[in-house]
Amino acid sequence: MLTEKWHRIYENSHADAVYLECDFLRRYLTGFYSTDGYVILDESGCKFVADPRYFEAAEKKLKGSAVEVVAGSRPQAMELLAGKHTLGIPYPFTDAATFESLKKSFELVDCMPALRDAMLYKSDGELALIQRACEIAEDAFLQLLPAIKEGMTENEVAALLEYNMRRGGASGTSFDTICAFGANGSVPHYETGNVRLKFGDPVLIDFGCKVEGYCSDITRTFLFGDDGKHAEFQKAYDIVLAAHNAVREELVAGMTGKEGDAIARNYLAKFGLDPYFTHSLGHGIGLQIHEYPTLSPRSEQVIGDRMVFSDEPGVYIAGKLGIRIEDSMYMKDGRTHSFMGKTQKNLLVL
Amino acid sequence: MLTEKWHRIYENSHADAVYLECDFLRRYLTGFYSTDGYVILDESGCKFVADPRYFEAAEKKLKGSAVEVVAGSRPQAMELLAGKHTLGIPYPFTDAATFESLKKSFELVDCMPALRDAMLYKSDGELALIQRACEIAEDAFLQLLPAIKEGMTENEVAALLEYNMRRGGASGTSFDTICAFGANGSVPHYETGNVRLKFGDPVLIDFGCKVEGYCSDITRTFLFGDDGKHAEFQKAYDIVLAAHNAVREELVAGMTGKEGDAIARNYLAKFGLDPYFTHSLGHGIGLQIHEYPTLSPRSEQVIGDRMVFSDEPGVYIAGKLGIRIEDSMYMKDGRTHSFMGKTQKNLLVL
Repeated sequence: MLTEKWHRIYENSHADAVYLECDFLRRYLTGFYSTDGYVILDESGCKFVADPRYFEAAEKKLKGSAVEVVAGSRPQAMELLAGKHTLGIPYPFTDAATFESLKKSFELVDCMPALRDAMLYKSDGELALIQRACEIAEDAFLQLLPAIKEGMTENEVAALLEYNMRRGGASGTSFDTICAFGANGSVPHYETGNVRLKFGDPVLIDFGCKVEGYCSDITRTFLFGDDGKHAEFQKAYDIVLAAHNAVREELVAGMTGKEGDAIARNYLAKFGLDPYFTHSLGHGIGLQIHEYPTLSPRSEQVIGDRMVFSDEPGVYIAGKLGIRIEDSMYMKDGRTHSFMGKTQKNLLVL
Repeated sequence: MLTEKWHRIYENSHADAVYLECDFLRRYLTGFYSTDGYVILDESGCKFVADPRYFEAAEKKLKGSAVEVVAGSRPQAMELLAGKHTLGIPYPFTDAATFESLKKSFELVDCMPALRDAMLYKSDGELALIQRACEIAEDAFLQLLPAIKEGMTENEVAALLEYNMRRGGASGTSFDTICAFGANGSVPHYETGNVRLKFGDPVLIDFGCKVEGYCSDITRTFLFGDDGKHAEFQKAYDIVLAAHNAVREELVAGMTGKEGDAIARNYLAKFGLDPYFTHSLGHGIGLQIHEYPTLSPRSEQVIGDRMVFSDEPGVYIAGKLGIRIEDSMYMKDGRTHSFMGKTQKNLLVL
């Protein structure tokens, strides 16, 4: 028996069967997490082939679901595929060695477009997990603020924030936390280091966590004390925040990723800041921290209900300042809503 | 100009050029970490193609090294490969889409065997980083012990341990921390959960961290209070520890992974415990948490100086008890040495 989700993926893959070895895709199809295992989706249903390490746990967790758990490893999975001619595998998540080996027995097609299309639309259960991951991230940030002291390193601040998220119920971070003091914030992909916090420093923290595999993504920029030299920073901050808010207000269902990106970029352009917005507005969020839809100057993807994405405009002036404000967002009833609401977005001065 | 390492990899790849897109392999060849970039190794030297996000940092970090930093992205990398006929790419770390695309322009061969052979032998610099990752992990464990209290969840204990490692200078964990209370330890790949600690519980923690990409791996099993019902546990523990120690004492250069594994397995067999040792003795450790050499019943790999691997015998009796004792080890002057020495291995009762 095929659920509606499985049916759509199976149909759109145009293959006799879909075959998955990749962990997050296995989890997406079955709802069960394991580091190893094989998933087969065909017209008869969805089978999960689990080795002795996972068999018992999989049987228990998937009882009552439509997934059939089969004991075994790759050879058993291959037996289940006997007689299939065309096999759908996710090309971007299949290594070349596996690809070459499967090619000997099957005609291969890429089922990733079908999976991506399905993954674009989050179920209520998925939205609830992302909501939880967002709440944990915001709570962790609020617990962090009073603990930030002069002299702490970027790594120490990141470590404490990550600990707060873990204690709050996250299984881990959704990506390497970026914590940048002072002008380091002007490097969008800054590698958190051992720079120490000084009075008056701007602090940029880009972070997120996972709940049952689902990610959150949030960036806050604030000042560690006001040394009275931040007039230009405050001005730029307010413009970035207004650009961020404009997206939430103006991005509606039916617009493309390009149009969404343009909302923020055009707003920044009014103040001559668009040359300093050196990356895309946003990316989809789900079991992966970067998925679809893409909100960039070239994205033709149409944004619709049940999609989850980041809204993260920024302004980076090399060696001088870096500001980014980001929430994880979702579309519902044709409008854009934020998962975040616990942390303030007006410029915070600690 | 080719360093000796590059020369060996290039020669053994049997290709006109080696081409890498994968992050940890790029780091291995260049010494520079980035989330994106392209590395080309040919008879003339090693080039790193970096986009604007990384170009400046790469130029700075690699100044004085033999790596040539080139500004650009994939198209620039392809230009540098113009005229090459055979291309060595790492099949297990190349996705099928990239593989299919490169295949149109080049004859492809798998350069992973050449890379694996080189990566087997750690340089002094690599050994020092692994040593540091091991020290941070042990220190974090020692800081954790006095903080463990009745009623804490497995996740809380894991979170605190991870925080200690991060504060100690690690960039993150080398894998998801396993923390299992009571009989949960009998599941070798247990997923850390929200079970609460009770007096008398055995605690199994398998953890590790990263320093500049290099991993540590360690497991400790101990008792949270002695409820007087642990005679059988103590007996099994002492046997596992003796098996662990036997490997350090008896595994010498020239033995195969199979022979290494047999040292522990045969020792356990003397006490009838070998059926409960349900995994391999060990795996190589480096930029990846699981690499070569493999110490398993079927491994024909010969162990030699400068190799780094885990020594992790265990005994798992389903629903009853789980014991694993693991150090990260290295071979030097033909003998096996542990990177660990700060934490005790005789049964600890908190």
